[in-house]
Amino acid sequence: MSLLVVGTVAFDAIETPFAKTDKIIGGAATYICHSASFFSKNINLVSVVGEDFPNKAINSLKEKGVDVKGLQIKEGRKTFFWSGKYHNNMNSRDTLKTELNVLEDFDPIVPKQYTKSEFLMLGNLMPSVQKRVLEQMQERPKLIVLDTMNFWMDNFMPDLKEALKNTDVLTINDDEARQLSGEYSLLIAAKKILTMGPKYLIIKKGEHGAILFGEDKMFYSPAVMLENVIDPTGAGDSFAGGFIGYLAKTKEITFDNMKKAVVYGTVLASFTVEKLGIESIENIEEEKVNKRLAEIRSVVSF
Amino acid sequence: MSLLVVGTVAFDAIETPFAKTDKIIGGAATYICHSASFFSKNINLVSVVGEDFPNKAINSLKEKGVDVKGLQIKEGRKTFFWSGKYHNNMNSRDTLKTELNVLEDFDPIVPKQYTKSEFLMLGNLMPSVQKRVLEQMQERPKLIVLDTMNFWMDNFMPDLKEALKNTDVLTINDDEARQLSGEYSLLIAAKKILTMGPKYLIIKKGEHGAILFGEDKMFYSPAVMLENVIDPTGAGDSFAGGFIGYLAKTKEITFDNMKKAVVYGTVLASFTVEKLGIESIENIEEEKVNKRLAEIRSVVSF
Repeated sequence: MSLLVVGTVAFDAIETPFAKTDKIIGGAATYICHSASFFSKNINLVSVVGEDFPNKAINSLKEKGVDVKGLQIKEGRKTFFWSGKYHNNMNSRDTLKTELNVLEDFDPIVPKQYTKSEFLMLGNLMPSVQKRVLEQMQERPKLIVLDTMNFWMDNFMPDLKEALKNTDVLTINDDEARQLSGEYSLLIAAKKILTMGPKYLIIKKGEHGAILFGEDKMFYSPAVMLENVIDPTGAGDSFAGGFIGYLAKTKEITFDNMKKAVVYGTVLASFTVEKLGIESIENIEEEKVNKRLAEIRSVVSF
Repeated sequence: MSLLVVGTVAFDAIETPFAKTDKIIGGAATYICHSASFFSKNINLVSVVGEDFPNKAINSLKEKGVDVKGLQIKEGRKTFFWSGKYHNNMNSRDTLKTELNVLEDFDPIVPKQYTKSEFLMLGNLMPSVQKRVLEQMQERPKLIVLDTMNFWMDNFMPDLKEALKNTDVLTINDDEARQLSGEYSLLIAAKKILTMGPKYLIIKKGEHGAILFGEDKMFYSPAVMLENVIDPTGAGDSFAGGFIGYLAKTKEITFDNMKKAVVYGTVLASFTVEKLGIESIENIEEEKVNKRLAEIRSVVSF
């Protein structure tokens, strides 16, 4: 089994009602890799950074078994930087600053030894870049999961719809599901989205859990109830990493196994939001993961 | 077993993105009684209406086994009227008009034969009125469930806190739980509220489900996913009616049995929102209820 992860590796600066950071390590692929590495030590990364990106952060990925041959390091250039401010309810945020830097002209080059990866996670990125990765795969992966966001729907909808045609699982939040489908009811929205390409759809609802649709079935996982949410950044990426990591490990692409993958994704995301940046997802303990999985199972049983 | 329901019987006028009504039958106690009657034909109602309130609506309650000796009909006066407009997302609403009418000086008189009711549902009402009912009970009911809302927290918090001291189960929504506790985390909010009197707390989250807290345990029920939500009015009341109706029928006041009561409440509320006013909850079919219960069980199992 091999898992290819494509997405941003970046600097973030985050402001929440409880904390404010300078530039810290972030990026969708960073969260995805750390989260997926809980299940798999055979992860290939395709991304880009500038020469200002610290070796320490790259080494931290390597230590988790992430192969970084596909991580381009652009000399004389700067790493993608995003800065955002979360509102009081932590469910919405404003982007304060986006410096694309190396992302501006990012051409994802998939190293030859990655082009037969069985599992492909296309993290939140410009849809045309996601498509460029798909085109380089020598064999169609067994499972392609694509994450995206409202920004790409606002500005690159045709490209996104094109990328979706080759996707197996799409992960988006509830507002994005409504935007993509033009339907308010999530049930109707899901039906519509499942005609656009993806065979499975996961609607992430933050503190309200996540819903998996596909094969005319539905599965719902509540979120882990937390006393302290410090920083929601990367929650969706950690979810996606846990989801595809579990599937890559177990190799069983069925609705039943995806349910468990959704719960694992939910659990891994719950750790991410408890600390700033990747601090928590970088240091996951198996015992704690199993405890939260058991909590979710118990909280819904009647 | 006997169940006493106290709450408003009223006229509503409702505006949603999909519909607009003239005066239709509404009121918390109306929804609660219809919903609870799915489980029990031994319901006593204490409320008040004006002479303008149609006999037909009273007879519809009687047909469900609701005893209306405690329903005061005030000659020469008008029934409580509320009019509201739901926003596009159906999760929030503005009150357009409130005519208290007979509610202005409502003195709830509990008929002697009701004063030993074993189950008491205090529907959303002025807290001092809820307290007046409690004072008239000859024997403390086995279970007292109290529903309330932000309006009473804004204007009558001391009275509400007084009423809570004698409550077993409090049902409120997530915003109200935050307002009542002053805490943002629902987990911390719940802990705090459970020191105010109630032994159990149910936080209703609308389309995002409901959470039961108590005995240091937690239970979560997702809402039924619906293609069409027409009118959310009375959803919380239908939930409360289903919850206490099921407990009154089964008579087992344990956390485990309350879980099932929460799921039944969730299912009954799901019917209410699919049609305008009480149209749906007035005509509940057992088969459909059982089907939705099975759906909830299946959607969370992994």
